[in-house]
Amino acid sequence: MILTAKLISRLTLYHSILTELEEEGTETVSSPQIAELLKIDDSQVRKDIKFLGKSGKTKVGYKVTEVRKLIEKTLGFEKTKDAFVVGAGNLGLALAKYDDFKYYGFNILALFDNDPLKIDITVNGKQVFHIAKLPDLTRRLNVEIAILTVPKSFAQDTADYLVASGIKYIWNFTPTVLKLPDNVQVWNENLIGNFLQFTKDI
Amino acid sequence: MILTAKLISRLTLYHSILTELEEEGTETVSSPQIAELLKIDDSQVRKDIKFLGKSGKTKVGYKVTEVRKLIEKTLGFEKTKDAFVVGAGNLGLALAKYDDFKYYGFNILALFDNDPLKIDITVNGKQVFHIAKLPDLTRRLNVEIAILTVPKSFAQDTADYLVASGIKYIWNFTPTVLKLPDNVQVWNENLIGNFLQFTKDI
Repeated sequence: MILTAKLISRLTLYHSILTELEEEGTETVSSPQIAELLKIDDSQVRKDIKFLGKSGKTKVGYKVTEVRKLIEKTLGFEKTKDAFVVGAGNLGLALAKYDDFKYYGFNILALFDNDPLKIDITVNGKQVFHIAKLPDLTRRLNVEIAILTVPKSFAQDTADYLVASGIKYIWNFTPTVLKLPDNVQVWNENLIGNFLQFTKDI
Repeated sequence: MILTAKLISRLTLYHSILTELEEEGTETVSSPQIAELLKIDDSQVRKDIKFLGKSGKTKVGYKVTEVRKLIEKTLGFEKTKDAFVVGAGNLGLALAKYDDFKYYGFNILALFDNDPLKIDITVNGKQVFHIAKLPDLTRRLNVEIAILTVPKSFAQDTADYLVASGIKYIWNFTPTVLKLPDNVQVWNENLIGNFLQFTKDI
């Protein structure tokens, strides 16, 4: 069993459920409880948790905190990954405000924009810098990940600028398919594709 | 070959590439051209376009407009799907402003919030209504889809309210795993899972 995209996705959803149970003071949970919330089979849940290195005890279930910590260890939450948000529009601001990222070792250091009205404002403790400062800050802070949230018409030019600045991973929230060199990784956050998949039976 | 999530995702990315080529005035495209942009195998592209009902001609390639239209027909872009955005924060506003949705038959009719400062403002031609108006407008406009972008702490209560109002599909952008009745479909937009998948080798 390897850490596939689907397994990673399920583990993060289990993590969300377990965190909530902990906040409520619940100490144990059964696989059918988790399975029901996600509308999946409970044998899948048992298999996934076994992959983490833990078997549930009959009639007792799993210890919530223990499984939560195993997920964090397996998914590498303990290792911090720094990123810049490029484009301080509504989407960029929403991501900068999304506090749950920090539980996963994902740290947005700063935002960038070219709109003078946005420069130097602070969002959730993160400053918006002029885009011209990106190359220098990328190198000085050793940042490899950029989250691209600029308007579609600026997407390719901005991506080229990120690559020239030393960015190696682009999380692309624009609907543009970017032309990038082979040494740069891109993840297209394909919202349209997800929506169509979700609503295909309507 | 059936319309799987991965195939839908690829087709929407091809659509984005083809639309851009059309805007540039390009009339034909080859499978390796598309494949290189997406860093996938060109046999995959040929297979997918064949699924749409079209074979490429050797040394000529595919007609851009023709394939673009076939994708729209296959993915049902011609059928409009109305939705409400629930939560007029940065993420809700970003989605309301996201003009590309309309090319895919996806129509955001209005937004809802409980913050008096946001009620009655208009974003990209869409009005923000008080959340108390949602049940009535859901029934009158026959809306089945809600996009949930409220803060995490309000996610479950708001989802319950949506269900009681007659919403059947919830596109969940909150990090909460929602408890929902079996007749309600949910799509968890698992940003954390995607990020971890994307950056797992860093």
